Amino acid sequence: MPHIDVDENLPGIRALLAFSPKTAAPMGELTNLLLRSNEGLSMADRELIATHVSYLNDCFYCQQSHGAIAACYLDGKNDLVEQVKTDYLNAGITDKLKALLTIAGSVQKSGKAVTSQQVADAKAFGATDRDIHDTVLIAAAFCMFNRYVDGLAANTPTDLSSYPLRAKQVAEKGYGNHVFSDKQPVYGQ
Amino acid sequence: MPHIDVDENLPGIRALLAFSPKTAAPMGELTNLLLRSNEGLSMADRELIATHVSYLNDCFYCQQSHGAIAACYLDGKNDLVEQVKTDYLNAGITDKLKALLTIAGSVQKSGKAVTSQQVADAKAFGATDRDIHDTVLIAAAFCMFNRYVDGLAANTPTDLSSYPLRAKQVAEKGYGNHVFSDKQPVYGQ
Repeated sequence: MPHIDVDENLPGIRALLAFSPKTAAPMGELTNLLLRSNEGLSMADRELIATHVSYLNDCFYCQQSHGAIAACYLDGKNDLVEQVKTDYLNAGITDKLKALLTIAGSVQKSGKAVTSQQVADAKAFGATDRDIHDTVLIAAAFCMFNRYVDGLAANTPTDLSSYPLRAKQVAEKGYGNHVFSDKQPVYGQ
Repeated sequence: MPHIDVDENLPGIRALLAFSPKTAAPMGELTNLLLRSNEGLSMADRELIATHVSYLNDCFYCQQSHGAIAACYLDGKNDLVEQVKTDYLNAGITDKLKALLTIAGSVQKSGKAVTSQQVADAKAFGATDRDIHDTVLIAAAFCMFNRYVDGLAANTPTDLSSYPLRAKQVAEKGYGNHVFSDKQPVYGQ
């Protein structure tokens, strides 16, 4: 049961965003900027980083939500998404993305865990400063989102069939626009 | 040395915000909403929560910056700010704030570390749902900011006299407005 009185019909972070639409607006905007871009990293790469960090933080809602969105961008390759969570070094992804996932895994532990060698490795595989920046900020942002969801004990749908439906909406339309009402927040992850 | 090529004349997170003004905008807006409000929790309470979490995350820049801003709101009581970092249960603050700092400390570890008992304790001392929400989100947001700063190895001024000067600006004017240019970001913490 959530720690505060939120709309129990809304799943996960969406109930929290509805509780606090003012803070939901910049959080949604940040999510769109970080995850709905193909500048450097693809949208699939970005969702895989978010999914991996959410897995490391043991946030069921976020890893299911973003894993399903990643799968949408990857022609339904759910097995690949699962492998990126638990065993990315052996997954069928680029060496560059593997190096960036290593950095993201360090960020999940602590900012100080990122090493110059990890950054040099990523750059050797073609990562730009923008790629490094976005990887660190996506990983850091999901250390926020994961804690927001679980720290308030938001309801988490255990029916896994609900996630692909929502993922399809996000894949098609993004995380929402800037139009809000108190009762019907557009943002949601 | 920072892991990416940023303006080394800007301290801490300000160099990162200048590197990426698009993402800086919602991050600054979120900071203002969470820290520049007296709705329920005072601005001093909010900065103390941010400072405590930054201390737990061992982020020198953020704990110095926000500790100095908290001290501005608390008539220069630096000793109190220091005690809230390391020994808040014995500090001269309200029982309600102590209970909220306990929740913030749990969020720093993991969202799942927050217990129903911790929330019940805070409510028994008068915390509202809004106070609980804001405490969890401030703590979660600083798990992002701290990782952003240290994950990119942003430059951290070691001259402690620089922090109160910046703190006074923030205390008077807030974390900035929405006017940006690539070279002169207004936001900064």
